Amino acid sequence: MIVALAGGVGGAKLARGLAAIAGADLSVIVNTGDDFDHFDLRICPDLDTVTYTLAGKANPVMGWGLEGESWNFMAQMKALGGEDWFQLGDRDLAIHVLRSQLLRQGESLTRVTRKIATRLGVKAAVLPMSDAPVRTRVQTASGLLDFQDYFVRLKCDVPITGLRFDGAAQADPTQPVVHALDKAQIAIFCPSNPFVSIDPILAIAGIHSRLKAMRIARVAVSPIIGGKAVKGPAAKMMAELGYQVSSLTVAQKYRGLIDGMVIDMADADLAGDIRALGMAVKTTRTLMLSPEDSAALAAETVAFAREIGGR
Amino acid sequence: MIVALAGGVGGAKLARGLAAIAGADLSVIVNTGDDFDHFDLRICPDLDTVTYTLAGKANPVMGWGLEGESWNFMAQMKALGGEDWFQLGDRDLAIHVLRSQLLRQGESLTRVTRKIATRLGVKAAVLPMSDAPVRTRVQTASGLLDFQDYFVRLKCDVPITGLRFDGAAQADPTQPVVHALDKAQIAIFCPSNPFVSIDPILAIAGIHSRLKAMRIARVAVSPIIGGKAVKGPAAKMMAELGYQVSSLTVAQKYRGLIDGMVIDMADADLAGDIRALGMAVKTTRTLMLSPEDSAALAAETVAFAREIGGR
Repeated sequence: MIVALAGGVGGAKLARGLAAIAGADLSVIVNTGDDFDHFDLRICPDLDTVTYTLAGKANPVMGWGLEGESWNFMAQMKALGGEDWFQLGDRDLAIHVLRSQLLRQGESLTRVTRKIATRLGVKAAVLPMSDAPVRTRVQTASGLLDFQDYFVRLKCDVPITGLRFDGAAQADPTQPVVHALDKAQIAIFCPSNPFVSIDPILAIAGIHSRLKAMRIARVAVSPIIGGKAVKGPAAKMMAELGYQVSSLTVAQKYRGLIDGMVIDMADADLAGDIRALGMAVKTTRTLMLSPEDSAALAAETVAFAREIGGR
Repeated sequence: MIVALAGGVGGAKLARGLAAIAGADLSVIVNTGDDFDHFDLRICPDLDTVTYTLAGKANPVMGWGLEGESWNFMAQMKALGGEDWFQLGDRDLAIHVLRSQLLRQGESLTRVTRKIATRLGVKAAVLPMSDAPVRTRVQTASGLLDFQDYFVRLKCDVPITGLRFDGAAQADPTQPVVHALDKAQIAIFCPSNPFVSIDPILAIAGIHSRLKAMRIARVAVSPIIGGKAVKGPAAKMMAELGYQVSSLTVAQKYRGLIDGMVIDMADADLAGDIRALGMAVKTTRTLMLSPEDSAALAAETVAFAREIGGR
C-alpha cells in the first residue's frame, strides 16, 4: 500500500510510475486548492491532471488536458465574446459538466472523482484531499488573487509575497484519505510545487498530523533540479518568498514530515546538507520525460523508502 | 416592419428569407416552450435554430445545430457514462454555457439572445416570446411528458392526447415583443408546427390579444404540404389529436388571427374551403430546400400580405 501526495503535472507523472508498481494499492491524495468555478462549472485542474495521466490519456505536449483534444467550444466561446482566458477542451469539458451536475445533485467530490476515474480505466484511488472547499489565494503587492487568476490569467507574472489556503482550517480529510494514510506502508511526496500543490494538502490538520505521526517511511521527491523547476512557478515562488531555489529548501520545508529525499544527480552536492537535517538522501535522475522515466523513478523511490524502513 | 412568429427549422427558414427582404426591420418572435435545462445548462432549441439560420450558420444536413459541428464533448460524455440522449455539439455548447452563465448573472433571456445573435452577425431581432418560463408538456396515454423527453428521447414515438403550456398564463410578452407587434406593418405566421411551435406563443395572452386586434395584414404559411409535414411531428400530432392532416386544419386553427394563408400548390384544391373561412389564399411552392427557396417564398408571402393590406 502506497500513499502519495500530488498536485499537477510532475506529481501526476510520478503517480503514473507508482501505479505501474502498486496498481489498485496506490492512493493519490490530490490538491484541490486550485479548484475553481468557471462558467458555473467546477474545474479541478490537479484532480484531472492526475486522473488523465493515470489513465494514460494526458496531453503529452501541453502537460495538461487530454490527448487528441479539440478546441471548438473555446473557439466559439471566443467568437461569442465570452471569457476565453481559461482553456477548456471539448472532451475535457465533458468531465467538468458531468462533475458539476453530480456535485449539484449532492454527490461528494470524492465519489464523483472515483466515478470519472473508474470510467477512464484508472485502477489507483485518486482522492481529493477533502470534500470541503479549500481555495488557494496568492498574496501579491497588488492584492490578494484567486489562484487561477494568478496562475492562468496573469501567467504568474506578478511577484508573490505569500499564500493562503482559505477553508483549510475547517476542512477535514475524507474517510478514504484517512484510510489511505492509516493503511499505507510507504508515503511519497511527489515532485509537485511545494507551495501551491503540497502545502494546501498539508494545511489540512487531519492530514498533517497523520503524516507527522506515521511510523512508515516517508519520502519526498524534489521538484527542483539544478536550481530550476521542471515546469511551473515553483522556482519563481521560492525565490520571491525569500528562499534559495534548491532541493535543500524543499527538504527544509518538509522537515519533520519526511524521512528521506530523492534529489537529482545534478544536485548531488546538496546531499550532505540535506542529510544534516536528519534525513536519508537518494541521488538519481529525477527528470520524467516518458512513462518509462516515471516508472524508473517510482521504482527507485519505492526501493529507497523500503531501504529506510519504518521507525 | 415585419413581425414573424416562429418555432424551429421551417420557421427559421422562412425567417431567413424575410431577413433578406427586411434586414433589421424584421422581428422574429420565437417559441421558448421547448426550452429546458440539461446538465444545468439552459437549452433553447428554437431560439438557437432561428439564430443559427439567420446567421447563415445552421447545419444544412441535420436541420438543427451549427454547420461544421464536432462532437467530441458528446463522445467523452458517453465514455464517462453521462447522459447522451440529447446531442450537444462542441460549438453549440458554447452558446448554452454562455447563455446559462449570463442568465445566472441575472440577465434576461431577451438580452442574452440579442447578445449572442449580434455576435453571430444577425441583423434581425430574434425575440424570445417571453422572459418568463413557459414549458410545453405533452399529454400521452402513459402520462405527462416534458417536451424534450417526448421529442428527442422518445423520438415522438408515443401517441399524444393533448398539450399543455405550463407558465403561459403567467407569462407576459417582453417589451421588445410588444413593440414589434405594435409597430409591424405585416405579421407572418411561419410554417412551424402549429401545436408545439406557434400555439405556445399564442398561449401568451398579451401576444394573442395583440395579434387578434391588429389592423395590419396577418398571413400564415402552412407547414403542411399534400397532407404531410416537411419535417417533425406536425402531421403525426394533427392526426393523433383528431384533426385531418391538411392545410385546411391549419387555417381553421388560426382563424380569427390571420387574414390570409399561403399554401403549397399541391394543396390548391383546398383553396376554396380555406377562402370559405373568410381568408385570402395564395398558392405557391412552399418547400424550402435552399436559401433561394426561402427568399422566394418570403418575397411571395410579403407581396401577398401587401395585396391583402390592412383592415
